[in-house]
Amino acid sequence: MSPQSLKFIPEPRTVAIVGCPFSGGQHRLGVDEGPIHLVNAGLGQQLKDLGWQVEFDGHHQFEDISAACQSDPPIGKLKNPRLVSNVTEAVAKVVGGHAAKGQLPLTLGGDHSLAMGTIAGTLSKHPDAVVIWIDAHADINTPESTDSGNIHGMPLAFLTSLASSGNLGGVVTDEVRPFSWLDKIHLPTSRLAYIGLRDVDAGEKAVLREHNIAAYSMHEVDRYGIGKVVEMALDRVNPGRRAPVHLSFDVDALDPTVAPSTGTPVRGGLTFREGHYICERLFETGLVVAVDLMEVNPSLKDAESVEQTVAVGCSLVRAALGETLL
Amino acid sequence: MSPQSLKFIPEPRTVAIVGCPFSGGQHRLGVDEGPIHLVNAGLGQQLKDLGWQVEFDGHHQFEDISAACQSDPPIGKLKNPRLVSNVTEAVAKVVGGHAAKGQLPLTLGGDHSLAMGTIAGTLSKHPDAVVIWIDAHADINTPESTDSGNIHGMPLAFLTSLASSGNLGGVVTDEVRPFSWLDKIHLPTSRLAYIGLRDVDAGEKAVLREHNIAAYSMHEVDRYGIGKVVEMALDRVNPGRRAPVHLSFDVDALDPTVAPSTGTPVRGGLTFREGHYICERLFETGLVVAVDLMEVNPSLKDAESVEQTVAVGCSLVRAALGETLL
Amino acid sequence: MSPQSLKFIPEPRTVAIVGCPFSGGQHRLGVDEGPIHLVNAGLGQQLKDLGWQVEFDGHHQFEDISAACQSDPPIGKLKNPRLVSNVTEAVAKVVGGHAAKGQLPLTLGGDHSLAMGTIAGTLSKHPDAVVIWIDAHADINTPESTDSGNIHGMPLAFLTSLASSGNLGGVVTDEVRPFSWLDKIHLPTSRLAYIGLRDVDAGEKAVLREHNIAAYSMHEVDRYGIGKVVEMALDRVNPGRRAPVHLSFDVDALDPTVAPSTGTPVRGGLTFREGHYICERLFETGLVVAVDLMEVNPSLKDAESVEQTVAVGCSLVRAALGETLL
Ligand SMILES: [Mn+2]
Ligand SMILES: [Mn+2]
Ligand SMILES: [Mn+2]
Ligand SMILES: [Mn+2]
Ligand SMILES: [Mn+2]
Ligand SMILES: [Mn+2]
Repeated sequence: MSPQSLKFIPEPRTVAIVGCPFSGGQHRLGVDEGPIHLVNAGLGQQLKDLGWQVEFDGHHQFEDISAACQSDPPIGKLKNPRLVSNVTEAVAKVVGGHAAKGQLPLTLGGDHSLAMGTIAGTLSKHPDAVVIWIDAHADINTPESTDSGNIHGMPLAFLTSLASSGNLGGVVTDEVRPFSWLDKIHLPTSRLAYIGLRDVDAGEKAVLREHNIAAYSMHEVDRYGIGKVVEMALDRVNPGRRAPVHLSFDVDALDPTVAPSTGTPVRGGLTFREGHYICERLFETGLVVAVDLMEVNPSLKDAESVEQTVAVGCSLVRAALGETLL
Repeated sequence: MSPQSLKFIPEPRTVAIVGCPFSGGQHRLGVDEGPIHLVNAGLGQQLKDLGWQVEFDGHHQFEDISAACQSDPPIGKLKNPRLVSNVTEAVAKVVGGHAAKGQLPLTLGGDHSLAMGTIAGTLSKHPDAVVIWIDAHADINTPESTDSGNIHGMPLAFLTSLASSGNLGGVVTDEVRPFSWLDKIHLPTSRLAYIGLRDVDAGEKAVLREHNIAAYSMHEVDRYGIGKVVEMALDRVNPGRRAPVHLSFDVDALDPTVAPSTGTPVRGGLTFREGHYICERLFETGLVVAVDLMEVNPSLKDAESVEQTVAVGCSLVRAALGETLL
Repeated sequence: MSPQSLKFIPEPRTVAIVGCPFSGGQHRLGVDEGPIHLVNAGLGQQLKDLGWQVEFDGHHQFEDISAACQSDPPIGKLKNPRLVSNVTEAVAKVVGGHAAKGQLPLTLGGDHSLAMGTIAGTLSKHPDAVVIWIDAHADINTPESTDSGNIHGMPLAFLTSLASSGNLGGVVTDEVRPFSWLDKIHLPTSRLAYIGLRDVDAGEKAVLREHNIAAYSMHEVDRYGIGKVVEMALDRVNPGRRAPVHLSFDVDALDPTVAPSTGTPVRGGLTFREGHYICERLFETGLVVAVDLMEVNPSLKDAESVEQTVAVGCSLVRAALGETLL
């Protein structure tokens, strides 16, 4: 099953682990510890055992950015707008740099606002990339539609140009407007597919319908089975199986019994195997160019749950990078 | 996905919550508390949020009936025959009254013997209605075939005329024979479909086979997947998708890990999502005219299990009344 | 669904319970207690209730063999080679004897090395039998490829002649070479199908590929659903549905949440229902001639887990011998 070669990653295949201990896109403490736990669990060695060269230069601490954003009052409803904008911009450069070298960036979050950076980075090298977004949530609220103001619920609005630095919902007097760096990035909604949705805000549902976005909720997973749903998603956004694939996996897509230590768990999620199946199948296409694993929060739930969630996280990454059952 | 209109429920669509804290059809205390917990969990408001007008006049206490049935010795093996007959007759009138006004009756049990009332009520307005019965059990024992004598295992025998007031299995000297009110009600076995069966008595299996009843057990759910099974069930009893649909959902259809607080749990049941899928898909047909949610028993298992079961119950009802994931 | 007759088992159908409290094929204490717990749970009576004549002459203690193998130093990496060889040879005779009388041998393990005996016994009566092997593991390591030296990971290598008494990986000076009794037994790899694999060693993966063995891992169960996977497995090894079927079920094929008390549990396994579906469907073919239930270890995990695992074991056997939901 394992492809002899990856279409966009030259041999010797190299994965660059981008550890992003960042939690500014939401309000719960601890999600910044996710990447540290994942790396400490031995993820690097596991990927070497799969035949990858592994590059890891330590976790990105974004200390200068944090210092520069000590004062970061909300803009409209947006919380920590300058911090999130600057951090994700930095992530975009790191991810884009790895991609430019022919490496596969594996970004470990941290909260899902980071995907603004990772996907922007991917698009800098692969402008025709498609995004497969595995999540209980659509993360496509705009600064207007958001209730919470947490930016980890908005990355896809900025990436698809539904939101931009010009409509942050508040007066902006900053010298550099937050998220203006993203204004030149554009992921067409026709190149975005979701799997696992089950807690989508009313405003987001309207957006998904209006733009006819390929959205496969748990209803479709029940109806068709995960095998068929993955093919349906690929058929929609990558019909010729030729475009590069960026996989952005929010662990809350999994059922809370499978991945309990995450900030916004929702019942009725993907099983252990369904989550892995998605990763295995996407790798099998030979088209994957970048992987995000987001929202592992080791400060939530008991020690056993944390260990379980971290183990599942590592296991999903291995599956996305070529581990197979047979 | 949500239908613009419901075929048999005029706008503004109104749901009438019929709370039936009744446990006379079985022997465990506490199932009469089910509807109270469901309503207290905010089910009414949740349905308003889905766009329904909600009518709820408090729980039906059946006090006069209970008083009149203080002496209710068994008839043959049947326990509490007069009480169950009189209560279900009263429920039939209430449900039928709501249906007559164009409302959708939502009956919260209580034990599943209540479905004699709810389905009789539905048939009074919609004589061609079909019944989709979601249950681990077939509930089609006759007064002869029953082991326990608990009438919640028999409602479908009375409704399909396999049982009647003339064959209660004992001498009846009552002025009015119990269940004689049901003798004029007839649900053809060709208009009944089961999903979720896995604990069916030998006598019931024979009945299902003899009458060629559309019965989809967990074996079929495994074999075909829940998506296909729902279509197969509808194809059997509602091939043109034109007849009104009465959904009677026993929470013990769900796996005990999903809905633990119920009187007769059986392993190997529907997952959280499979249960919801059935409700979502039936609503999507636009044909639903009545919904029962039965056998939530908040006196069984620990507090967390009760809360979970009540939450699942509310969630199933919302799905059956139009809540969608997207 | 239940076939009127079993193609290879004459009426009155008789099952011979072969209790094998044996643990010499692996290193964990307690798996030898499995058969005792299964029988004590009432399995014999349960099978009578399904219409079988039940023959059970007590558990086989292999005491003479154990005494004769007091000194049993490793051969190459193989642990307990003489003990395992002699016990499985004895089992082959017992199972073969029952099969010769037209009985269906039901072997309760004990560790999965016993299947060398059970399958050899089956082949003595039904030389064209096919094997359906339900397991998280492939159990097809050779004396060269094994890491652990535990023979319960090798039975299929000996049965398919990939391993033989001539290549045990060490110098053998025994008068009778261990496993030489098996040299004349040959199960072609084209008559072996796996379901449930998810922890397969690299060397085993190579063997499965090289010999094009019908191997359905959990990836395929996710992709196609268990219903389709069972048909695919049968289509590969028994396309005309004419050959006798030997079912060898390792309980670790089930997810550890379903069958926790087993020696080598692996996450992401078959659900309760998927396990039962396989058994139900195989019985439905009318072709089953022998059943193994292996690797129940009542000394692992807490009392509730043990009770659950034993109950599931009994339930799987009942399903394989004709219990149906409808
Ligand atoms: Mn999420
Ligand atoms: Mn997310
Ligand atoms: Mn019921
Ligand atoms: Mn029931
Ligand atoms: Mn095994
Ligand atoms: Mn195994």
